[in-house]
Amino acid sequence: MLKPFDDTYFMQQALKEAQLALDKNEVPVGAVIVTNNTIIARAHNLTECLTDVTAHAEMQVFTSAASYLGSKYLRNCTLYVTLEPCNMCAGACFWTQIGKVVYGASDEKRGFKNHNTPLHPKTKVVKGILAAECSKILLRFFEQQRKINNKS
Amino acid sequence: MLKPFDDTYFMQQALKEAQLALDKNEVPVGAVIVTNNTIIARAHNLTECLTDVTAHAEMQVFTSAASYLGSKYLRNCTLYVTLEPCNMCAGACFWTQIGKVVYGASDEKRGFKNHNTPLHPKTKVVKGILAAECSKILLRFFEQQRKINNKS
Repeated sequence: MLKPFDDTYFMQQALKEAQLALDKNEVPVGAVIVTNNTIIARAHNLTECLTDVTAHAEMQVFTSAASYLGSKYLRNCTLYVTLEPCNMCAGACFWTQIGKVVYGASDEKRGFKNHNTPLHPKTKVVKGILAAECSKILLRFFEQQRKINNKS
Repeated sequence: MLKPFDDTYFMQQALKEAQLALDKNEVPVGAVIVTNNTIIARAHNLTECLTDVTAHAEMQVFTSAASYLGSKYLRNCTLYVTLEPCNMCAGACFWTQIGKVVYGASDEKRGFKNHNTPLHPKTKVVKGILAAECSKILLRFFEQQRKINNKS
């Protein structure tokens, strides 16, 4: 059966955002926020462009979704993000009380899971959606960077 | 000996920011960033005014300081904040690689310390500067809120 609006579909949309980050030489992480099967916010990592370490995809997409809804809480929303959130972004997830977090690639070193950083008790977590694709775009970025560094 | 630019002086400046938050009915937390004895950024919590849970004093002051310096890293800077940073803000501290974090009141429940959320290995931490004053303004806010809630 066709499932046009399942987790894979929305993660593909987050991957499109990651591609936009890659096009700008940013670490390619993308995110979307979904409520009632509708994407209400899209963002990608912009830490280099904005000279701001807080400009992770998740932080921007939360601000954007809250602005759209006129509500600082995102209880009926799902965050789709291509990489496991870091502690900062997990902390933001906690404050938004977001209903569900779906991420693609795991981040053993910087991800919130290994640090046991708590999300809100009501937040559900799904991991590994399109994990290979989400990892691949990150690996491509770091390979590109190595080539640039070796040339200089 | 007079020490016009010690931790107490800069925490007083962060407290002035907390007062500005209180005046707006925001949870009164204030922050300043200092480098070479100069305040380069000031901010206070604006989560209600901006309908944005990411608008903690620390998050805003980091963005502001990075913009002022034109550098996303704040290695030679000190953050003065009236309340112990939460996990989100501690995560942001990590990414900025900030040189020193000085906070006033402890936050047993939401503070980063009890969650063991890591800052950057080079970040020094000082706590308890003007702790009583920093707690007092928070208690005043929550008392105010209780009165409002009891009336409604």
